[in-house]
Amino acid sequence: MSALKNKTVEGFVAELASSSPAPGGGSAAALSGALGAALVSMVCRLTIGKKGYETFEKEAEAILVQSDLLWAELVSAIDRDAEAFDRVMDAFRLPKGSDEEKTRRSAAIQAAFREACESPRNTALKSLEVLRLCSLLLGKVNENAISDLGVAAASAHTGLLGALMNVAINLPSIKDVTYTSSAAEESARWRAEGEGLIDLVSRGVESLLSGK
Amino acid sequence: MSALKNKTVEGFVAELASSSPAPGGGSAAALSGALGAALVSMVCRLTIGKKGYETFEKEAEAILVQSDLLWAELVSAIDRDAEAFDRVMDAFRLPKGSDEEKTRRSAAIQAAFREACESPRNTALKSLEVLRLCSLLLGKVNENAISDLGVAAASAHTGLLGALMNVAINLPSIKDVTYTSSAAEESARWRAEGEGLIDLVSRGVESLLSGK
Repeated sequence: MSALKNKTVEGFVAELASSSPAPGGGSAAALSGALGAALVSMVCRLTIGKKGYETFEKEAEAILVQSDLLWAELVSAIDRDAEAFDRVMDAFRLPKGSDEEKTRRSAAIQAAFREACESPRNTALKSLEVLRLCSLLLGKVNENAISDLGVAAASAHTGLLGALMNVAINLPSIKDVTYTSSAAEESARWRAEGEGLIDLVSRGVESLLSGK
Repeated sequence: MSALKNKTVEGFVAELASSSPAPGGGSAAALSGALGAALVSMVCRLTIGKKGYETFEKEAEAILVQSDLLWAELVSAIDRDAEAFDRVMDAFRLPKGSDEEKTRRSAAIQAAFREACESPRNTALKSLEVLRLCSLLLGKVNENAISDLGVAAASAHTGLLGALMNVAINLPSIKDVTYTSSAAEESARWRAEGEGLIDLVSRGVESLLSGK
């Protein structure tokens, strides 16, 4: 399969809508996070060098370096997530005749599910980082781009939540309890931090928009 | 400019990140809504014809017809929003030497801002419709696609909120008070309905995921 990131936007959406389970919610979450990071980059670019925002220029430049990295990584995560799903399907198709085959198949399934959790965990953490950048930019960006900052935060939050749902649906298939309990605990922590950040940014953007 | 929907996913995200204000948050919101609608379609397709879901088949088929229409419309909205922004910029560049030119320029600016509100209003309403479909599907879809339904709802909600922020930033530039007050009132109504729906679906998806 050719890389999803190289499909047209319309082609990707059509493929998402198809009966094939991959790409699915995990890839959509990664794209959401990428849209959030890209909008952070745009907001920074529309602020740097603009009259009236000189005080925030250094900070916007530092954030831009991070957001440009994050959108590229989150775009890659679109394909990583679809591949992780395919690997789970492949593992289930392995032969299970002899005891040796059963052991090998079972190990392959466990490894595939681990990756099917690690992939959305990566998307979740990167999306959370985008949300953190949004909160740092609040009140410091070109006022014509306030709505873009708001959409950035909402998109990043959807990337985070969507990825965590994909972690949650795959976690019960993993037998390693040390891994699952630590991943579940981390999911709860990221989710709570994301909730606080989206609340903060949404309120801030709303008050700036209504003050226009 | 070639249509945004024909760019590659990676190319679109890169263009979003660039210093050009269009595409911006409005186009990203439309894409979010489209991702939500496409995931609704996928969830329906993974439910129709599946053993154990015969009772919900008719309903899933009816919803699928709507979600397939909605994702196509929301994909078109990606370009419509960027074009609306460009039209505002073009209107500001019109000559303003004579009184006649001033009047013509002012009318063009008003018409352009009206379209810059109508475009995200269309995205908001379509995204809200996607959210309504998600709520109708709750508890009736293939259990392997529960997380996809959750990501669908989160994406549609971001499409709605993101579009409403774009309405809010453009509305103050419109002088027709009948239009602005009715649009503001409608925004508040859609937002409240969306809030209720995303709460409902998120709680439902979460409880289904934790029961797995």
